[in-house]
Amino acid sequence: MEHDFSYYRGKRVLITGGLGFLGSNLACALVGHGASVSVYDALLPLYGGNMFNVEPVKDRVEVIIADIRDRARIGKAVAGKDVVFNIAAQTSHVDSMTEPLLDVEMNCAGQINLLEAVRNSAPECRIVYAGSRAQYGKIDRVPVTEDMHGRPTDIYSANKIAGEMYHFVYSSAFGLKFTSLRISNAYGPRHQMKHGKYGVLNWFIRLAIEGKKIKVFGTGAQMRDYHYVDDVTGAFLLAGMKDEALGEAFNLGGPEPVRFVDMVKTIVETAGSGGYEFVPWPADRKAIEVGDFTADTGKISRALGWRPRMELGEGIRRTVDFYRRFGKEYWR
Amino acid sequence: MEHDFSYYRGKRVLITGGLGFLGSNLACALVGHGASVSVYDALLPLYGGNMFNVEPVKDRVEVIIADIRDRARIGKAVAGKDVVFNIAAQTSHVDSMTEPLLDVEMNCAGQINLLEAVRNSAPECRIVYAGSRAQYGKIDRVPVTEDMHGRPTDIYSANKIAGEMYHFVYSSAFGLKFTSLRISNAYGPRHQMKHGKYGVLNWFIRLAIEGKKIKVFGTGAQMRDYHYVDDVTGAFLLAGMKDEALGEAFNLGGPEPVRFVDMVKTIVETAGSGGYEFVPWPADRKAIEVGDFTADTGKISRALGWRPRMELGEGIRRTVDFYRRFGKEYWR
Repeated sequence: MEHDFSYYRGKRVLITGGLGFLGSNLACALVGHGASVSVYDALLPLYGGNMFNVEPVKDRVEVIIADIRDRARIGKAVAGKDVVFNIAAQTSHVDSMTEPLLDVEMNCAGQINLLEAVRNSAPECRIVYAGSRAQYGKIDRVPVTEDMHGRPTDIYSANKIAGEMYHFVYSSAFGLKFTSLRISNAYGPRHQMKHGKYGVLNWFIRLAIEGKKIKVFGTGAQMRDYHYVDDVTGAFLLAGMKDEALGEAFNLGGPEPVRFVDMVKTIVETAGSGGYEFVPWPADRKAIEVGDFTADTGKISRALGWRPRMELGEGIRRTVDFYRRFGKEYWR
Repeated sequence: MEHDFSYYRGKRVLITGGLGFLGSNLACALVGHGASVSVYDALLPLYGGNMFNVEPVKDRVEVIIADIRDRARIGKAVAGKDVVFNIAAQTSHVDSMTEPLLDVEMNCAGQINLLEAVRNSAPECRIVYAGSRAQYGKIDRVPVTEDMHGRPTDIYSANKIAGEMYHFVYSSAFGLKFTSLRISNAYGPRHQMKHGKYGVLNWFIRLAIEGKKIKVFGTGAQMRDYHYVDDVTGAFLLAGMKDEALGEAFNLGGPEPVRFVDMVKTIVETAGSGGYEFVPWPADRKAIEVGDFTADTGKISRALGWRPRMELGEGIRRTVDFYRRFGKEYWR
């Protein structure tokens, strides 16, 4: 079933992290649906923000280069908006363990700044929060449903939980309208390609395109949910417009669970270059590894009619094509 | 059964929030058990810190006036310690909703500062974290066990969860030794008496002593667990010395659940002055009210042999006596 996104025609939409991977794909989609789009991004050097990401819509979006840690700027940006897609974040698990205070500043204080801005300047607007599978931490059975609670293994994961809790608090105390989408492993065009600290599937695509060898930690047998960015964008659009989404947290997931090593094989085969090898887990990764993770997406399917559509092979093919064509904009 | 606290003889102990209610009672007990005690407190004006709290042991404790937001000072204070009682916090539910960023600074960033200090300067020491019943938020059945998850209703509660999660993360990733004690409603001598934003039982004692009328919001029928501070101190001492406590979170609770209004009646009767009246819930309190809360304390009873001993009537009598005697040190 195709969804009708005409709701967004003429809507004033703010996307924090709007020059990054998810945010920019969403910006492009929203422009297509006739929304008036502002993207807000700090363009921090190691993060996913990239002006090239909004190249196709650059004359039709407002670009605000600012940080969510800047209370005044975020307050001004939120004023008058109908929908806020709240995606800006520090997103590296590993960096959250070496720079935990930075993670608190961005993923806790930054979230408070956004919520205070909405409360003060746009209390009727809808907020869609980019949650994460990381919130479940180590969990003893899969697939994971939204009511399950594991133990987070890194500061990033703890703070994604905190950020979502803040939204629930502002929702119950001040009536803000929000939805949380707990993203599993998203991949596709417009992801940063500078390092493999997050979005490892995309990073592997770069390695394969460059003819390099992908390192698979341990046996690579852990199960994962990979979902193509267009599917994620669709979920954000639904969450930003449907009343059934209000006050809820939903899992996103892929069309079917995939073994990590099979994802790697698909990349190498699709790219027709590069290779892979098994290596032992590095200590910093092993310390925060959570084992199998697959999401039960029944809740969002029932409530919003969302289902992931893109098969992994086809999604990887499109991603490889994108980076073969535009790689020079991302390789820096 | 009396516990043997000779473990603490000669131990170097740091208490953050050590001039406050729980911290200072703990400091006095630890000095009695022969520990070498340092108290670390910012003495923030509206908080519980009070130099008079350590009057009985003032020549036998090191007093460090500093803030947990000060990374350098906390790092220096932690070095060489055997046990850290991690109690400093912003503790007002209501203030966390008007100053949410302050709550993040103290209860998130401050916790990271403490954990980084332990990791870098005293990785072998034990940490006991002052958790809270607030972590359970709104919960649909009582008594509450440690594996239950409600939804926090204010930023303070969300950040107490975050703080505890950080401890678990540092424990699993870096091997730090910690225990969390989720305190329910503690009362007794040395609590601040300047306002009723937290520790409302104690605040009511002041009102009764001053012959004033206590306002009971709504029907006052909600169930609560009140525990006397000496019982809480005992739990902290056990958690700081027993291996069975490592890596665990434990509920604390009172000897029996009490209706809020019955607590008020006991205070008025014990003080022999003051009175009470029923008034509607103010909006800011109603927004964060969680309903009945009583804790199942079976886990700490089985693991550490802890049980609350002080009956509410006797505890209130002792507290009234303390403030009748020393009230002038707390009324400011």
